[in-house]
Amino acid sequence: MPAPLLNDRDIEFLLYELFDVESMTSRPRYADHSRETFDASLQTAKTVAEKVFLPFRQKADNNQPTFDGKKVHMIPEIKPAIDAVIEAGLACSSADYDRGGMQLPAIVSSAAGAYLSAAGGVALGYTGLTNANANLIEAHGTPEQIEKWVLPMREGRFAGTMAMTEPSAGSGLADLTTTAVKDDDGNYRITGNKIFISGGDHELNENIVHLVLARVKGAPKGVKGISLFIVPKFLVSEDGSLGERNEVALAGLFHKMGGRAQTSTALNFGEQDGAIGYLVGEENKGLAYMFHMMNEARVMVGSAAAFTATAGYQYSLDYAKERPQGRLLSEKDPNSPPVNIIEHPDVRRMLLTQKAYAEGAFALCMYGSQLTDDEHTAETEEARKAAHTLLDFLTPIIKSWPSEYGPKANYLAIQVLGGHGYINEHPVEMFYRDNRLNPIHEGTTGVQSHDLLGRKVPMNNFAGYNACIREMEKTIEIAKQSSELSGYASELADAIGTLKKTTDTVLAATQSMNIDAAFSNSVKYLDMFGHVVIAWMWLKQGIVADNALENQPHEADVQFYKGKLQALQYFFRIELPEIYHWSKIISELDTTNYDMQAEWF
Amino acid sequence: MPAPLLNDRDIEFLLYELFDVESMTSRPRYADHSRETFDASLQTAKTVAEKVFLPFRQKADNNQPTFDGKKVHMIPEIKPAIDAVIEAGLACSSADYDRGGMQLPAIVSSAAGAYLSAAGGVALGYTGLTNANANLIEAHGTPEQIEKWVLPMREGRFAGTMAMTEPSAGSGLADLTTTAVKDDDGNYRITGNKIFISGGDHELNENIVHLVLARVKGAPKGVKGISLFIVPKFLVSEDGSLGERNEVALAGLFHKMGGRAQTSTALNFGEQDGAIGYLVGEENKGLAYMFHMMNEARVMVGSAAAFTATAGYQYSLDYAKERPQGRLLSEKDPNSPPVNIIEHPDVRRMLLTQKAYAEGAFALCMYGSQLTDDEHTAETEEARKAAHTLLDFLTPIIKSWPSEYGPKANYLAIQVLGGHGYINEHPVEMFYRDNRLNPIHEGTTGVQSHDLLGRKVPMNNFAGYNACIREMEKTIEIAKQSSELSGYASELADAIGTLKKTTDTVLAATQSMNIDAAFSNSVKYLDMFGHVVIAWMWLKQGIVADNALENQPHEADVQFYKGKLQALQYFFRIELPEIYHWSKIISELDTTNYDMQAEWF
Repeated sequence: MPAPLLNDRDIEFLLYELFDVESMTSRPRYADHSRETFDASLQTAKTVAEKVFLPFRQKADNNQPTFDGKKVHMIPEIKPAIDAVIEAGLACSSADYDRGGMQLPAIVSSAAGAYLSAAGGVALGYTGLTNANANLIEAHGTPEQIEKWVLPMREGRFAGTMAMTEPSAGSGLADLTTTAVKDDDGNYRITGNKIFISGGDHELNENIVHLVLARVKGAPKGVKGISLFIVPKFLVSEDGSLGERNEVALAGLFHKMGGRAQTSTALNFGEQDGAIGYLVGEENKGLAYMFHMMNEARVMVGSAAAFTATAGYQYSLDYAKERPQGRLLSEKDPNSPPVNIIEHPDVRRMLLTQKAYAEGAFALCMYGSQLTDDEHTAETEEARKAAHTLLDFLTPIIKSWPSEYGPKANYLAIQVLGGHGYINEHPVEMFYRDNRLNPIHEGTTGVQSHDLLGRKVPMNNFAGYNACIREMEKTIEIAKQSSELSGYASELADAIGTLKKTTDTVLAATQSMNIDAAFSNSVKYLDMFGHVVIAWMWLKQGIVADNALENQPHEADVQFYKGKLQALQYFFRIELPEIYHWSKIISELDTTNYDMQAEWF
Repeated sequence: MPAPLLNDRDIEFLLYELFDVESMTSRPRYADHSRETFDASLQTAKTVAEKVFLPFRQKADNNQPTFDGKKVHMIPEIKPAIDAVIEAGLACSSADYDRGGMQLPAIVSSAAGAYLSAAGGVALGYTGLTNANANLIEAHGTPEQIEKWVLPMREGRFAGTMAMTEPSAGSGLADLTTTAVKDDDGNYRITGNKIFISGGDHELNENIVHLVLARVKGAPKGVKGISLFIVPKFLVSEDGSLGERNEVALAGLFHKMGGRAQTSTALNFGEQDGAIGYLVGEENKGLAYMFHMMNEARVMVGSAAAFTATAGYQYSLDYAKERPQGRLLSEKDPNSPPVNIIEHPDVRRMLLTQKAYAEGAFALCMYGSQLTDDEHTAETEEARKAAHTLLDFLTPIIKSWPSEYGPKANYLAIQVLGGHGYINEHPVEMFYRDNRLNPIHEGTTGVQSHDLLGRKVPMNNFAGYNACIREMEKTIEIAKQSSELSGYASELADAIGTLKKTTDTVLAATQSMNIDAAFSNSVKYLDMFGHVVIAWMWLKQGIVADNALENQPHEADVQFYKGKLQALQYFFRIELPEIYHWSKIISELDTTNYDMQAEWF
């Protein structure tokens, strides 16, 4: 039997026990839903993942798409597999009924996507971007734009991309040079080069809708002069039929270390007269619109990192349970049979660490997805606003923590398999390669750290920051009531106290010293905040497990909940205390890195 | 201009300033040598690396060897390149003159190899193993065996391998099942399957000499019943000419994530009558002999990890100096030009971290190589013994610390390049893949941690352990004299104090509790000891730099030495304090990992 893609029991735990997804069915948008419909969509995703994607996961990794100068070629399994996802309604399962969706809560939709992700990532790579693109146009486009572009994307006929990065400006969007010139007909002519555009060209769909950041002639410099355009691969007539090819040319494919089934492209816009583009919203407000998509993409990236970490954890766990090798140190008799490697304490360490990282990150991403539901569907305006504020604040952490710790989990998955983990007979080396992209795209970890410390923390008079701390304190109050958990509750309270002092110190320092120096440990700050948030996620899980154990559950559930409590213990004993050293460096405004001169390297 | 493979100035610093290699020329073995001959061999290696290997580094990575059922095929560039290494005398440069070597000190030979390693690793992969194989036979074989096998290996006509691992016993050598039956002629017939044999088959050499661990019929169970055999691919006649093919069959090639130019093979020995094998030394003492090669291979693995970390550091440093992108946080004017990314504090953090890891590991590996020189050529028997004791003790640290922190450095090299680091236009993603093998082969990090804590620490009444601490204390005494360094000196002294207490606590615990539980944090202990040793290496480098700066060096040297002092500061402020949390877990005999039950996952 192949290793499970994910742990079904854990997904059940997260959705129904931790985040009480069933209670969401009281909201009008989800009124037709029930645990049965949620379970059905999870089961469908699992089946498609196992039956359709898993069989060619390795083949897709071994055979990247190629470009013959005219078209992109990829292995034939990919198109029918993505069609199967669309067919099953999984491509845009959270979209409106009347736009082709199933109005599933984002948290359920994301959990279903986790199965697809674990089976290779290619499905989410294409459909997830398309979905996020459609969501942006739905939010900021005109009714005509929605009609013309969103519907075909929801139906799976068109694909969508996000085209921001340029060869000479990666994270530095202020310097992008793609230009837009207004035409007599009110449309724009787009000229410029973009790189690292995921899904930028392929033959999987009839058409591809690029959302392109460009600068209208005469616009202000920097990020305040960026506008957003819909630039399709093929023009579309009034009646919806495909017209002529727009000036969007594939310049080449990049060869990535991982995520190899998805094309990463260099695109040239407007090599002759300029590609025809349609303005989204108003001129010079493009970056704000793009952040609609980018914030969603950031949660997607964190989630993909968590899913890939989980897939590696489950695979190495399965291997460790089956593979006999060696004896315990305490066993001196060479005639004794070898034990399964899960018996070795150091293998348990590597598995428990993976569990703590993967399931902690998974919980955080599900929480983030539920906040995206809440910001649209919570019962009161106040609750919706609160969810928005909290999600906005947490986004850099949801993006980064899973992205940084997911690869560490995958590192350990390889190590559990030893030499077998380093060869392509097992997928753990692929997970390790795939996951390495996540700390880079949609804003590197460094970019996220500036977003957190420089924007999200002080934003709106610390509204998100304070809300996050209040939520954590609520959990602490509950945990305090349990004899099993009260120790962890006070440890988390201590950690939050240190976090607050650290925050105050760094922000105060910007008044008296160079901000470059004061913020030079921003990644450590992000890491620290992330560790506190994951500890919180573990305490939340511990509360559920602790309660459940008091109600004499079935034996299998007893084991499951004990595992949760042990991972909680792991995180609080081994991981959380790391923050005190980090806090010291940040609070002392250590400038070791900042002071290092270019000539000294 | 391409990025430098390594930093020549740092190699000069390590060899001539830190480890005073010139003084070794007073030893009879190195009497013909001088700084000129050392520099010439370094220059030769650099030239061969840049001119011969670098041009096909990427091609070799993209085109793994294949097996058509009869022969192994690889890209045509590899054989002439390896021949060029042999031609230049670099394949066995530390071997005896009369056996084809140049009698270079191992430390110089290793530094020369660093250039080849940085240019792709393929040269060292094949020649390094051959050399280590020859060294073993030279040490434990009969004069006839040396004549027959060592000489052709030194000449580069034969290659050598180490065949230990079996499909059902990876790290668990006690369970190996390959058998040896004594023949009437005094030779043995070997039957069994081996996997992950690097360089196990190819057409680069006339013949391949496998050193095979097998169990003589009737031998004791476990590691005490293992013998070592020379099993050639082709039999060799008395006159040295190649005879018929031995029963060594290539069963297949493994497809590795990295190090892809080197074959990793599954070999079947004796599919009919048994492969002919020649016993090395005495029966049942095979593992002890193999450790001669394995200890050497462990230092080689640590060194390869350090070299690959250095190559990634140098590449990303070069990129960061040239690549303009973004502005400092303090720069509010969007009209200002973008800065080179090395100006961003977080990029400096990633570069300085890489410098601290890569150059710290490099220094440790050079130190280890010098100890291999000292154990053979130091002036007194006492000094030779002392070097042997210290090297034996440090081997698990030399193997593991670079292997664990090298990949972390390569992770950061990718991050410095951002999206560009994730694609194969730049070699940093390859370094990341290549380096991932090093914590696995020649004994995983877990195996090394048991070797350190269970064997090397208490061995011979703590002889190696005490010697290591004494050496560190000598450095502390010197550093105390400098106002610049005395703070670091006392920090290292404190760290050593904590290390000693931690060691005592864990070893005492084995008297009163289950050794599996007491040793369950052994990897953390290894990590802690490693961090203390690397801090020591940085303090040693700091002493040299501090002294040099007092003597008004040239401006370029001032910059170089200041960089050394800044990396020292980084290691002591950011890295070394991590050990206190680790020490707490180890000393409290935390059993969080040990207590995790298989059913709880």
